[in-house]
Amino acid sequence: MSSAPEAEPAATPAPGTLSATPRTRHRRMREQGGTDRRELFAVLDAGLVCHLGVVVDGSPMVVPTSYGFDEKFLYLHGSVVSRSLVAAPTSEVCATITVVDGLVLARSVFEHGVNYRCAMIYGIPRAVTDPDEKLEGLRLLTEHVAPGQWDYARRPSRKELAATTVVAVPLDEASVKTRSGPPSDADSPDAGLGLWAGVLPRTALWDTPQPDPALDARIALPPHLARLTGTDERHSPASA
Amino acid sequence: MSSAPEAEPAATPAPGTLSATPRTRHRRMREQGGTDRRELFAVLDAGLVCHLGVVVDGSPMVVPTSYGFDEKFLYLHGSVVSRSLVAAPTSEVCATITVVDGLVLARSVFEHGVNYRCAMIYGIPRAVTDPDEKLEGLRLLTEHVAPGQWDYARRPSRKELAATTVVAVPLDEASVKTRSGPPSDADSPDAGLGLWAGVLPRTALWDTPQPDPALDARIALPPHLARLTGTDERHSPASA
Repeated sequence: MSSAPEAEPAATPAPGTLSATPRTRHRRMREQGGTDRRELFAVLDAGLVCHLGVVVDGSPMVVPTSYGFDEKFLYLHGSVVSRSLVAAPTSEVCATITVVDGLVLARSVFEHGVNYRCAMIYGIPRAVTDPDEKLEGLRLLTEHVAPGQWDYARRPSRKELAATTVVAVPLDEASVKTRSGPPSDADSPDAGLGLWAGVLPRTALWDTPQPDPALDARIALPPHLARLTGTDERHSPASA
Repeated sequence: MSSAPEAEPAATPAPGTLSATPRTRHRRMREQGGTDRRELFAVLDAGLVCHLGVVVDGSPMVVPTSYGFDEKFLYLHGSVVSRSLVAAPTSEVCATITVVDGLVLARSVFEHGVNYRCAMIYGIPRAVTDPDEKLEGLRLLTEHVAPGQWDYARRPSRKELAATTVVAVPLDEASVKTRSGPPSDADSPDAGLGLWAGVLPRTALWDTPQPDPALDARIALPPHLARLTGTDERHSPASA
């Protein structure tokens, strides 16, 4: 951990890099800091929900919410944060997306840890009012969790669109932290203890789809959802 | 959503219930609010990391971190939050634990959602200085993610313990929100569209353990980790 004074971000960040402000230049675990935009988008791709931090009456509030994104913005359903956005429209938020990849089991408790990828995005959310951008934000939100669903499901009506709050957080100030690989005490005296050490990988997957009990049994699972869940492979007549 | 004014919390909450302050009495989706302590502990049991929100220079910062807990406190590794704790030792934090259970796919995009369980804990963290409580906090942290590991791995030395910051957040002010079940548009005109609707369940599991490449091959995976990953069933010689 460096004790060097922290500089203001450069006026013109290099193309493809994220601006590194003092707070996104991690003070702890700086060696794990990533500034590459591709890393950011890889985490955004892999994540499912973000944890959105807002300040309400001086205290932090962290709420989980789904998201979508393009090259420039993280799009969020405004409903979750509407209260704080209304109360303080120019306040910053922090949206954190974490993917847990595994548990790092070392010889000593002290060296235990988690393998993970984490993106933190700081920005002032903007309420999306343009109907086209709002629709695009909802498309990105939908397609992020279930690719193909936007073209399959009934899209929002004019009335529904008006009742939906969408906010956009610029992807200008962000950082990525990751930890991967085995525990780090293989070269320590603890290696002589004869204890198992390694990583327990963590995987999240979509399980067998559960049709709405009210669903007409003749309505089949569409291919884009079967692909998402692996149902087409695991539950095909041939392998059943 | 009720527009009734929000009262201060009762001075003496009923046994087994969480205090409901104005902010933990959800303003949105109040019907999903749960105040039962058992619900809280069920979410804490099921979660793996929490997202901790702190306020730094007036802005929110949300960091993922592992946790442990007992009946009274959420225990966190202080390293992640030490900077903010040092800067503002009496500031409140919000620790949010979210378990995503599935994706709710409705006939209309408007009714899409996520099945989840979420606990939000508000409190002023206390730096744990008593060595016994610190050790107990670390035990809870370790046992939460890998039951049995505390008795297996080398425990912290006096020096390591001194180098570790543990904080405790009281479990006095907390709320639980959940969403479960099928989409809610089965009774709407959209049900006539002939579209598939239902839930894609989401499961997170431990995958096949990856031994440290430096590990002596004669050191076997201990039973408590084999149980955790299901390795004893899936990879036993009999089924291989």
